Amino acid sequence: MTEQNIQDLRKIVGSEDCYDDKAHLSAYCYDATKERKYPECVVFPHNEQEVSQILKYCNTHKIPIVPRGAGSGFTGGALAVNGGVVLALEKHMNKILEIDMENMVARVQPGVVNMQLQKAVEAVGLFYPPDPASEHYSTLGGNVSENAGGMRAAKYGITKDFVMALRAVLPNGDIIRAGKKTIKDVAGYNIAGILIASEGTLAVITEITLKLLSKPKYKQSAMGVFPSIQSAMNAVYKTMASGITPVAMEFLDNLSIRAVEEKFHKGLPIQAGAILITEVDGNLPEEIDFQMSKIKEKFYENGASDFIQANNEQEAANLWFARKNASPSITIYGSKKLNEDITVPRSKLPELLERIQEVSKKYSVVIPCFGHTGDGNVHTNVMVDGSKPEEVEKGHKAIEEIFKITVELGGTLSGEHGIGLSKAPFMELAFTQEEMELFRTIKKAFDPNNILNPGKMAL
Amino acid sequence: MTEQNIQDLRKIVGSEDCYDDKAHLSAYCYDATKERKYPECVVFPHNEQEVSQILKYCNTHKIPIVPRGAGSGFTGGALAVNGGVVLALEKHMNKILEIDMENMVARVQPGVVNMQLQKAVEAVGLFYPPDPASEHYSTLGGNVSENAGGMRAAKYGITKDFVMALRAVLPNGDIIRAGKKTIKDVAGYNIAGILIASEGTLAVITEITLKLLSKPKYKQSAMGVFPSIQSAMNAVYKTMASGITPVAMEFLDNLSIRAVEEKFHKGLPIQAGAILITEVDGNLPEEIDFQMSKIKEKFYENGASDFIQANNEQEAANLWFARKNASPSITIYGSKKLNEDITVPRSKLPELLERIQEVSKKYSVVIPCFGHTGDGNVHTNVMVDGSKPEEVEKGHKAIEEIFKITVELGGTLSGEHGIGLSKAPFMELAFTQEEMELFRTIKKAFDPNNILNPGKMAL
Repeated sequence: MTEQNIQDLRKIVGSEDCYDDKAHLSAYCYDATKERKYPECVVFPHNEQEVSQILKYCNTHKIPIVPRGAGSGFTGGALAVNGGVVLALEKHMNKILEIDMENMVARVQPGVVNMQLQKAVEAVGLFYPPDPASEHYSTLGGNVSENAGGMRAAKYGITKDFVMALRAVLPNGDIIRAGKKTIKDVAGYNIAGILIASEGTLAVITEITLKLLSKPKYKQSAMGVFPSIQSAMNAVYKTMASGITPVAMEFLDNLSIRAVEEKFHKGLPIQAGAILITEVDGNLPEEIDFQMSKIKEKFYENGASDFIQANNEQEAANLWFARKNASPSITIYGSKKLNEDITVPRSKLPELLERIQEVSKKYSVVIPCFGHTGDGNVHTNVMVDGSKPEEVEKGHKAIEEIFKITVELGGTLSGEHGIGLSKAPFMELAFTQEEMELFRTIKKAFDPNNILNPGKMAL
Repeated sequence: MTEQNIQDLRKIVGSEDCYDDKAHLSAYCYDATKERKYPECVVFPHNEQEVSQILKYCNTHKIPIVPRGAGSGFTGGALAVNGGVVLALEKHMNKILEIDMENMVARVQPGVVNMQLQKAVEAVGLFYPPDPASEHYSTLGGNVSENAGGMRAAKYGITKDFVMALRAVLPNGDIIRAGKKTIKDVAGYNIAGILIASEGTLAVITEITLKLLSKPKYKQSAMGVFPSIQSAMNAVYKTMASGITPVAMEFLDNLSIRAVEEKFHKGLPIQAGAILITEVDGNLPEEIDFQMSKIKEKFYENGASDFIQANNEQEAANLWFARKNASPSITIYGSKKLNEDITVPRSKLPELLERIQEVSKKYSVVIPCFGHTGDGNVHTNVMVDGSKPEEVEKGHKAIEEIFKITVELGGTLSGEHGIGLSKAPFMELAFTQEEMELFRTIKKAFDPNNILNPGKMAL
């Protein structure tokens, strides 16, 4: 980028919202992958019109531009790999525009933090279910762009199930609307459908209309203790197939349980092969009891040695403590975590976990696993000593083998984190040449000059 | 098409499955719009490989090709407006390939009739909710291509909410997969998302993977009688916003009630301004009672004069009779029905219905309305004497005005029927030039030779 480019962009957003100094470039060069890719300029647009002008300018001058929310992604989606502009939406475009109680819909700007919306709608008796682990800092624009999941996906689905409409700006500056505040809308192509999970490579989302539910009045949590991963995985899919749908069905393997216990001394069952932590909700106490008794039955039928129900919020928080602290605890096994969010059909969970254990042995790497088993989504963490290149290489080989197994079992490379940079090398494992060609054709149709978030998704 | 073209296609599918005789061309020239557009050839492929070969051939020879299920669409989606080939999928590609109990997923070919799947999964305790009025004859391929809704959409959503994965053939013959048998999958662009509701203009769907639910154990129906449409519409959205979600919330206006009564003498409340017919379901009797009492409360609060609960299946069938027979009954008002499936945000229903009444007066046309008000979807029926061209023209003017009102109220031209031919002239009411341009860019990306279902959706 030239000095003139920076000055031109400054004219659009004002001198207070366009920077090319070292401090700003450093502040916007990272994400949760810990990779660093420096942009040449950071711009903070105030509104859709400015986004449109900026994109038009970048398109004309063929300057790469990377939309960015909180920068909390796990796959490098917000990294400016080719330099250019980072379009930071969290500073000004962060308003909840409307909570429409009558139609149970919220309209938000992309920079709104997920939890900010959750709190605002719960205050009026409504409910926005998608709850990625990053809910306290990730933005809804990022959630839509990566199609974020979360613990409650087992019952309520993922971000895409809540997006009713989007406003967006195309690379040429055109402003478009996609979808409506209506449950049904089949006029025209489903543009919102293709923008969700497109990782900022097709358009910049400037407004999101989200479906809300009414907040269930009651909930209860429980924990099942299992002798082996296999018994726990059987319990998961047998429960899900029994006719009830828990809000969450999360699991920790023995390595994860031990890690949390070592760090926090909570009296967890460190001999257990695995634990499952579950939650049910409903509008009546009878619904809670019905669901809990069914889960208990299925857990015991599949070999659980213990089943602990929480009787109040404090007890529930205690049960959930292990799950919520698994990720930071497993660092005891290695300084570098190669963390993947593979997903398989639920019935394949026992085989997946068994084969991950084989990979662990084959490469002598520790692979603690935990995650959202209610929807088949497992966080596998290959832990290695980051200071030893040969260890890291071994870790990467293990990951590649795990990806192959996942695809073999009918699963996907990514349940919620996206492809970005870090999974791009594995796209050919999952997609045929024809499918990759179709992705590239779509990318070209939206963005012929390849200015929007270039270098991602192996496009 | 030349004789050589027909012979070449015959080589692909066999002589028993490729026809250009008058009987076949007549049998495949219509749909539910009652328009007739004759193809030059009808082909019945046996499998995906043949579909691929046929598309490749048509693409090379630039022959239009129109995929077709049951031909039950309301907007001309299956009509061969430019001649060419009708690709009829209902004859051979009509198998349920798998009902996977463990993952609660069904895999079907596009020619499977909706009700065939509903029955098959209910026989094993599972549930496929989308229930378009055409459920007894429309195919799942057509349901996906038009993103069909139905009565149960208020609680369960529409076809797109159940599509987990598709296999499809692109116009160039490439076979692609989109999506997985997993609840979460964010690898690559959401191709399934853009194929749903694309009305056969982007690809030919050859296999559909659908999410299933477990079948709720209990259900109950009820009817509310209201003095005016406005009081009924208020009751609809106040009920939906009260925290419970009925399976269905259907309405009939006075004209529709009178029409059914005149035809069938069922003792319906012909003085009522409107009736609402609703159903709730659940796994516990307590859930049913809770939801019913809430609905009753909201109905009476909003002016209902009567509330009748069904105590058994026979009573429920009686309540639903009026709704299920509304469409065939209103023909008493005119030989030609200009039937549109507009949809608005629920809170706009009272205003929409009020303004439709004004249109009715302005053009002196009778416009009975009924439909799926639980999701804001109203079937408006402008009834005219089909033998009088000036009447038909008046009807079309009324429809155009209703479309304008709908868009003004934040609604959509089509909640479930699609655009096809019949709504194509109204696309510019709903979409900007930039949005239409984007649709055309996408069409061109998938189908550069414009062979797939050309002439539809105003592309």
